[in-house]
Amino acid sequence: MKLRLSKRALQEDFQGDFVKMMLEVAAKGNLISFAGGLPNPSSFPVEAVKEACIKVLSNNGAGALQYNSVDGYLPLREFIANRYKKSGINLEAKDIVITNGSQQALDIISSVLVDAGDNIMLEDPSYLAALQTFHLYNANIQTVNLKEDGADVEEVKNVIEKYNPKFFYSIPTFQNPTGITYTNEVREKIANIVKKSDTFFVEDNPYGELRFKGEHQNSFGKLLGEQAILLGTFSKTVAPGLRLGWIASPVKELVTKMKEYKQLVDMHTNIFSQMVVAEYLKNNDYDEHIKTIIDLYGKQCNCMLECLDKYMPKDMHWTHPEGGMFIWATLPKGLDAIELGKKAAEAGVAVTAGEPFYERKRGEGTFRLNYTNSSFENIDKGISILAKVIEDMKKSQ
Amino acid sequence: MKLRLSKRALQEDFQGDFVKMMLEVAAKGNLISFAGGLPNPSSFPVEAVKEACIKVLSNNGAGALQYNSVDGYLPLREFIANRYKKSGINLEAKDIVITNGSQQALDIISSVLVDAGDNIMLEDPSYLAALQTFHLYNANIQTVNLKEDGADVEEVKNVIEKYNPKFFYSIPTFQNPTGITYTNEVREKIANIVKKSDTFFVEDNPYGELRFKGEHQNSFGKLLGEQAILLGTFSKTVAPGLRLGWIASPVKELVTKMKEYKQLVDMHTNIFSQMVVAEYLKNNDYDEHIKTIIDLYGKQCNCMLECLDKYMPKDMHWTHPEGGMFIWATLPKGLDAIELGKKAAEAGVAVTAGEPFYERKRGEGTFRLNYTNSSFENIDKGISILAKVIEDMKKSQ
Repeated sequence: MKLRLSKRALQEDFQGDFVKMMLEVAAKGNLISFAGGLPNPSSFPVEAVKEACIKVLSNNGAGALQYNSVDGYLPLREFIANRYKKSGINLEAKDIVITNGSQQALDIISSVLVDAGDNIMLEDPSYLAALQTFHLYNANIQTVNLKEDGADVEEVKNVIEKYNPKFFYSIPTFQNPTGITYTNEVREKIANIVKKSDTFFVEDNPYGELRFKGEHQNSFGKLLGEQAILLGTFSKTVAPGLRLGWIASPVKELVTKMKEYKQLVDMHTNIFSQMVVAEYLKNNDYDEHIKTIIDLYGKQCNCMLECLDKYMPKDMHWTHPEGGMFIWATLPKGLDAIELGKKAAEAGVAVTAGEPFYERKRGEGTFRLNYTNSSFENIDKGISILAKVIEDMKKSQ
Repeated sequence: MKLRLSKRALQEDFQGDFVKMMLEVAAKGNLISFAGGLPNPSSFPVEAVKEACIKVLSNNGAGALQYNSVDGYLPLREFIANRYKKSGINLEAKDIVITNGSQQALDIISSVLVDAGDNIMLEDPSYLAALQTFHLYNANIQTVNLKEDGADVEEVKNVIEKYNPKFFYSIPTFQNPTGITYTNEVREKIANIVKKSDTFFVEDNPYGELRFKGEHQNSFGKLLGEQAILLGTFSKTVAPGLRLGWIASPVKELVTKMKEYKQLVDMHTNIFSQMVVAEYLKNNDYDEHIKTIIDLYGKQCNCMLECLDKYMPKDMHWTHPEGGMFIWATLPKGLDAIELGKKAAEAGVAVTAGEPFYERKRGEGTFRLNYTNSSFENIDKGISILAKVIEDMKKSQ
């Protein structure tokens, strides 16, 4: 028979092809990997999750294993809403849609808001799997540059005025891939621009809890109220394997539509895992747990920054994140990050070249370094190898 | 701000509106419910799942809580492939895509196969949430009637020849909503028609393991090889709350595209639950467990059939399923099933009127009865109440 795939399945996917290529390169050896975005498994609360499983199955085993509502487990939504309230964002449990990780949130907001050809707005670079999802919906993607203090405010103003985008998808805190955080000043300026429009500000905030230095910056949820759609996840603070994220919005009609779509694509999120995480959060000090993660990641980031200072050529630069999981580095002029990715893998170190994170720009010589999933020893060893590869590339320029 | 939803989110949804209406009716009282499609929670292996959780977290806690691959947990896929092999269907672990329940499978096959306006083919009536998913993709839905021995073979032939559909979505065993099973003869005739086309046969088989009488009929996977896409689930045999289903196809390119799409919409399925179910299956006799479910459902079905015989007016008829979860009943001529639904709920019994299961036909006077989630006492009481409501409707005709 002749296989007749949909146009959707056949459309080009630069990001996907690139990631596949990098995975193939990386699969060749036992590498020191700065390439992924994995939490450190030593931070997973395995014993506490085990206790929560036992409690949930002992107290309400039938409920944990039966079908449930698309609404999501109420105590879990209440926990999330209360946490928002504590940070000055007025949201209720009814405003929360539980998703299979925040990746599903990207699909859901795209489905209910984006028709083919609709304008949306993104930071350039941005999270590569968000780009892929928006491509799937054939959104017309407008980009704004990132500066050290956040998105370029003038560009944000121009794009909103000119393109009237359905939403601005942003990761304002410890951005993926750059590690950049918007300052409060930039946040306020952007919020004031957004307020005058019909554009939603989609604040994706997977890393916001992981601040190891500097000061908390205001969520756009606080600044924009109903005009902010907030995405969150337990993947970076409890466990990604349980696939629990959420979307928060006080706009009732939007929430209703999101739930209707979610119900069609997978009925509801695993209720057992929702109950296990709610039980875990009830019986453990979440902030204390996050503090242990922050302590570790802060030390790992610091170690990587010190190694970069120590080993890297002087004509390179990189970001200095105050939290999250990534450092974003720029090669000396003229050097190619894709070539670096391949050569580094041959030398035993995996990094992610910047290319797939950009909607339009190519050849910027940028690459992403993840520091959360490597030992101090491997960070030192890996960065020194990487520096040598770069020196060699410079010599043969 | 002005809320600008996508056309997709705003399109009409007869099925969704209908279900909402029925849920509102049902929410009014503490009803005997024959309306849903819930497995009996007494069949959930709560203690064995608890033991599996403890083992998985003790042996590989970090792996169970970390990100994983979209491929799905290998031992679980091997279990599924081996079970297919035992029934004569040649599938390997690499041919299986693990999904969040088989509802997600419907979204995945639609995404990779259906462009707006593409013809697909369905039984009329069919599973209502499948209809909704196919509507979301703006498929052009062609229908074939169901007879007591399966889909009308002549109609299948005509629709395939005339419309060249991308796939025929079918629930050939203990169909939802009718409880009808295709005979081997009908299966072979349909397989021979499909073989001459480029149409996939999508065999949705959530209830196939739940046969309490009669003989096993051949899967279309056995009859059609690469032209069959098989959907399965652990929702009816282990636990729906864990949201574990799958798609099986030996067509490598199709599987690759399905995984790429799945990765974009939610990264991967909850790995902890996959490991827990794999561990459960390793340490327990699955067939023995299914036998206890079958014994219960067979008795419940029998009880409901006896009550229907005992209480219902003689000018009604209903299906006599050999397995699964549903009986499909037809009212005396001229009576309306939507009215029955409302009046029955007022009298304390919930049933699902046939309307939302049809793509085109309306006013057929059909309704669906679920027998798996009620006690024998409630089955007797509920059917007698229902019969009285129908008698009253007849009188006031």
